[in-house]
Amino acid sequence: MIITMKNKATKAEIEEILELVNKHGLKALPIHGDDYRVFGIVGDTSKLDIEMINAYSCVDNVLRVSTPFKKVSRTFHPENTIIKVGNLEIGGNKVVMIGGPCSIEGKDQIVRIAHGIKENGGDAIRGGAYKPRTSPYAFQGLATEGILNMVEARNQTGLPIVTEIMDASKIDEFVKHVDIIQVGARNMQNFELLKALGKIDKPILLKRGLANTIEEWLMSAEYIMAGGNNKVILCERGIRTFEKYTRNTLDLSVIPLVKKLSHLPIVIDPSHATGKADLVESMCLAAVAAGADGLIIEAHYDPRKAWSDASQTITLEAFGKIKEKCKKIAEVIGREM
Amino acid sequence: MIITMKNKATKAEIEEILELVNKHGLKALPIHGDDYRVFGIVGDTSKLDIEMINAYSCVDNVLRVSTPFKKVSRTFHPENTIIKVGNLEIGGNKVVMIGGPCSIEGKDQIVRIAHGIKENGGDAIRGGAYKPRTSPYAFQGLATEGILNMVEARNQTGLPIVTEIMDASKIDEFVKHVDIIQVGARNMQNFELLKALGKIDKPILLKRGLANTIEEWLMSAEYIMAGGNNKVILCERGIRTFEKYTRNTLDLSVIPLVKKLSHLPIVIDPSHATGKADLVESMCLAAVAAGADGLIIEAHYDPRKAWSDASQTITLEAFGKIKEKCKKIAEVIGREM
Amino acid sequence: MIITMKNKATKAEIEEILELVNKHGLKALPIHGDDYRVFGIVGDTSKLDIEMINAYSCVDNVLRVSTPFKKVSRTFHPENTIIKVGNLEIGGNKVVMIGGPCSIEGKDQIVRIAHGIKENGGDAIRGGAYKPRTSPYAFQGLATEGILNMVEARNQTGLPIVTEIMDASKIDEFVKHVDIIQVGARNMQNFELLKALGKIDKPILLKRGLANTIEEWLMSAEYIMAGGNNKVILCERGIRTFEKYTRNTLDLSVIPLVKKLSHLPIVIDPSHATGKADLVESMCLAAVAAGADGLIIEAHYDPRKAWSDASQTITLEAFGKIKEKCKKIAEVIGREM
Amino acid sequence: MIITMKNKATKAEIEEILELVNKHGLKALPIHGDDYRVFGIVGDTSKLDIEMINAYSCVDNVLRVSTPFKKVSRTFHPENTIIKVGNLEIGGNKVVMIGGPCSIEGKDQIVRIAHGIKENGGDAIRGGAYKPRTSPYAFQGLATEGILNMVEARNQTGLPIVTEIMDASKIDEFVKHVDIIQVGARNMQNFELLKALGKIDKPILLKRGLANTIEEWLMSAEYIMAGGNNKVILCERGIRTFEKYTRNTLDLSVIPLVKKLSHLPIVIDPSHATGKADLVESMCLAAVAAGADGLIIEAHYDPRKAWSDASQTITLEAFGKIKEKCKKIAEVIGREM
Repeated sequence: MIITMKNKATKAEIEEILELVNKHGLKALPIHGDDYRVFGIVGDTSKLDIEMINAYSCVDNVLRVSTPFKKVSRTFHPENTIIKVGNLEIGGNKVVMIGGPCSIEGKDQIVRIAHGIKENGGDAIRGGAYKPRTSPYAFQGLATEGILNMVEARNQTGLPIVTEIMDASKIDEFVKHVDIIQVGARNMQNFELLKALGKIDKPILLKRGLANTIEEWLMSAEYIMAGGNNKVILCERGIRTFEKYTRNTLDLSVIPLVKKLSHLPIVIDPSHATGKADLVESMCLAAVAAGADGLIIEAHYDPRKAWSDASQTITLEAFGKIKEKCKKIAEVIGREM
Repeated sequence: MIITMKNKATKAEIEEILELVNKHGLKALPIHGDDYRVFGIVGDTSKLDIEMINAYSCVDNVLRVSTPFKKVSRTFHPENTIIKVGNLEIGGNKVVMIGGPCSIEGKDQIVRIAHGIKENGGDAIRGGAYKPRTSPYAFQGLATEGILNMVEARNQTGLPIVTEIMDASKIDEFVKHVDIIQVGARNMQNFELLKALGKIDKPILLKRGLANTIEEWLMSAEYIMAGGNNKVILCERGIRTFEKYTRNTLDLSVIPLVKKLSHLPIVIDPSHATGKADLVESMCLAAVAAGADGLIIEAHYDPRKAWSDASQTITLEAFGKIKEKCKKIAEVIGREM
Repeated sequence: MIITMKNKATKAEIEEILELVNKHGLKALPIHGDDYRVFGIVGDTSKLDIEMINAYSCVDNVLRVSTPFKKVSRTFHPENTIIKVGNLEIGGNKVVMIGGPCSIEGKDQIVRIAHGIKENGGDAIRGGAYKPRTSPYAFQGLATEGILNMVEARNQTGLPIVTEIMDASKIDEFVKHVDIIQVGARNMQNFELLKALGKIDKPILLKRGLANTIEEWLMSAEYIMAGGNNKVILCERGIRTFEKYTRNTLDLSVIPLVKKLSHLPIVIDPSHATGKADLVESMCLAAVAAGADGLIIEAHYDPRKAWSDASQTITLEAFGKIKEKCKKIAEVIGREM
Repeated sequence: MIITMKNKATKAEIEEILELVNKHGLKALPIHGDDYRVFGIVGDTSKLDIEMINAYSCVDNVLRVSTPFKKVSRTFHPENTIIKVGNLEIGGNKVVMIGGPCSIEGKDQIVRIAHGIKENGGDAIRGGAYKPRTSPYAFQGLATEGILNMVEARNQTGLPIVTEIMDASKIDEFVKHVDIIQVGARNMQNFELLKALGKIDKPILLKRGLANTIEEWLMSAEYIMAGGNNKVILCERGIRTFEKYTRNTLDLSVIPLVKKLSHLPIVIDPSHATGKADLVESMCLAAVAAGADGLIIEAHYDPRKAWSDASQTITLEAFGKIKEKCKKIAEVIGREM
């Protein structure tokens, strides 16, 4: 941490800051230059609140030098984390493909889709039972019934299931039935939920918030890991920008960036990112080329009849074709699918 | 709702859409022009999902004409809603001033600040007991102890108290002790929390999310009102932009805009919006001039020692001076303080 | 400037950086702490390119401590700059009001509006002769004819005229005829135009770009001042955000912020910022309360017939009423109108 | 175009709007439903200004149905446009690679880099002679000397040259010496420059603005094409978002999107987009996988000594390796490199 004092800071004011620093068990070391306004703070500066120092009127500027996340950081965990879900590995050499409808609409629907995903090369099934909807009047999901429908789909296909949790009160249900628990973009900073998920032993698929930075996203992963649950899968699903043709803007540069900053696996959701079925294939190919560990795609046997997100949902056949093409891209960069 | 078909849509494709519309109890009326590509949909279109129609490859465009919120809308409730909290009225002619620390740090601190707020003309006390922090290692608040400290502050001053809820599991505690329950920016779309707050009879101060539109904000208010709780106070606290000098960008145009769209009161938080104590006064004067129903300000007897948000916290004396200046502005526009 | 090396930087690598710093006539001073990774750079660091240092693989981080603007900065010019245009002063105690149509549509139109502005208390006339339009097929302005129409409006009313320049090739025409030359938001970083305007002796009204930071805006003012023209008036006209109800988001916090950072006057344009005539009055009152030096408003005798920006244009009577209300706000904060 | 009246619009008010529509040679056709508030406007609605209609207080809403660009649109030009620059084709089956330094620093530098680009499989050379810099005190480029240095580089290698124009006054110089004229992000809406470039017969590489939508970008291309110059190459170089780890956010979804909307070729600049040399390779692979027609990359024999953009510049060897990897990706999707 670097503290810069204002030009007009008095000696007494500077002393006050230095004492404050000492009180926190840290050392303030002046940069001996033309003036004595800049101090480097040595020690565990995570104990010191930037805001508190900034509040002193004699302080011009406080800068943090090190990253605020620890368990998430590749610095302290150089090898890739591989997360096992039954026979499936996420974060290993194989790029995984997860598919399914936006909303679970009934047992027949999800079971039929699950078989289709399996036949077309999918590794896991996604589907929403609890749905975060902007309007209170929109379809809110089948809830527990939807979860049980997914369980049936898993029983019939053997594929693990991914579904979104919206509230900590439902954790027992999710731990009992679900293989990978998704935290949606709108709940990325629902810290009470993150804390609760830190105490269980289940993989968490953590979506990036609509307007959150990568650092905030990694800090949310840190919340889960700080609680003891190391099984975090990061998921980029597009960020909010000014663009109107697409629902959000898919940020594929997060793939190499997250791989440098962290050891956690990263999965890409091109469906929510673009909001358009006809952009999904290109974005899948690009994501695999950029080094993604997996894809999570909205697919349905008849997208036009999907109860939600219809315009961004692809057919099961399209899912299969994307798998074939991505497989070839994966091979070029030395990975399998 | 207006549906536009693609130029190359076949007659059979168009028929399919028209049937779909009819099935939902709606009428599709062609705009008789040079072509028959554009249809107006008449009836309660809230039943129809835009996405579902967009998913048909023959559809070029679907546009919703009416606003998606109902109970929040001034159209159906022309007079201003006035929310009573003891003797205090929010949304009436008097502009209210709420003040207090970012975090409650102990009984002495909050009680001392509460007295200071009262002496300097404040109408209610704010203070955080449960704190949403980006880092799991940062101070998370005194929790129940903090709530009880606030109750003591209320007992001594008679001022109502405002504090933030972060999880539906704490609702009983809040209903029992708190006068106005705050929903923070990061939880604006925590729909499970909103639903739970819709079932109680307490005023809710709903902050706008960091990157949410006004429509999304009003839809979150609609969630609370749809559950039966009409006591919603909207609170603008700045939105995320590219600007780095300020923490967020305060959007004061929401004041006249929300007043036109809705009957709910609106309160401005200049502290979180700007992140800088020396910008707070100007933004308070501007907010009152623009027609705000209230101000919620971070204030402390010694801002430099505040455990969080120190750099945006003002002194109790500064709070009093702002009150005096705002009062004069309020009088110019025909309001009291 | 603070340079932080990576943990694994070798001694040789560090030496290379220190030599580079010396070569630029600067001194690198280590912060003597638990390690020797952090260096403070002393001297005129504006000569050193952050990017160049960052390019060394052993460097973790480079941070600039001082502001990059000089002539614009209040540090080196503590008193407010007051810009004189005939009898009019901008930046003094009096808050000025500039009004007029978006586009000049003909002599009769602009002359009639100019008289209306004068009668309703306006201090200067605005109007577009060269129009920056998103579409090449939209009305592009009357060009030279429009400028001459404005000259006629000035002759008849005695009010100074403000109009936008779009290209350096037109500077002679503007110097000859125009009192205040406007640089539009889209040209805020048209550096060749800024350089050319730095060489003339005319007030420049520099609008903030749609997605530019305050620092970038002040750097564009620095371009003009670096050329020798000190007469720069800053103009906030809203920034691009996700909000759809308003055309842009008016950032009023720039008023106190710019007043702290710079000595230049600042004027607010609520018409382009909101895009809605019925939000203009509230935003004018708020701007004056926050300390703006002036307002620039789109006004027309019949807004509905304006050739451009009709929905954000107010009537001349509304302009007069806003003047009356703002005058009272100005008095409360110790200013005149 | 669809016009919706307010509920309380009187018959007389509606008549006034309908007359206005007729006066522009258009027909307003009511949607016969439960009310008569919604009208479809038939005919060439590009003549009608949305703002003008919105200005009527009885109007609730005006929506444009068709796209505002014509010559750029694939609707009216179904086949891909292929732009020839000597023997090089951009927009054909071959994906092109353009490389070179951010700034031209002298003849030796650019000639040496040009040879390196050629040896490593590059198809054209980029380099800045006129540099748009945020600060007036930063290196502004070698200007004409830089252009002539590039000409020498072309003479020695036979590769075409790409460089940025900043002002219409320099067009003759660019037409005489340069093969592809670049318009930078900050000048994307410098409409006077676009108009001037519409009158010449040279390929224009049009970068997307930092905070511009795809529609605005295509409208800027329309400006050039409306003047008669059909040789427009679109270039995505990242948009401004809240992310701080990267300089900008590369939007690769524009590749399939632009391919659908337009017939023009699209090239990706991963260097400016990410601002980090170690992200360039991944983003190149992703861009080719997504269907880009070319890549434009900052490369230098010693990136650490580049006078600008050093931290995002790769070595010439890295350029060659990227070429090899991209070639394999290109083959997978049926293209050459």
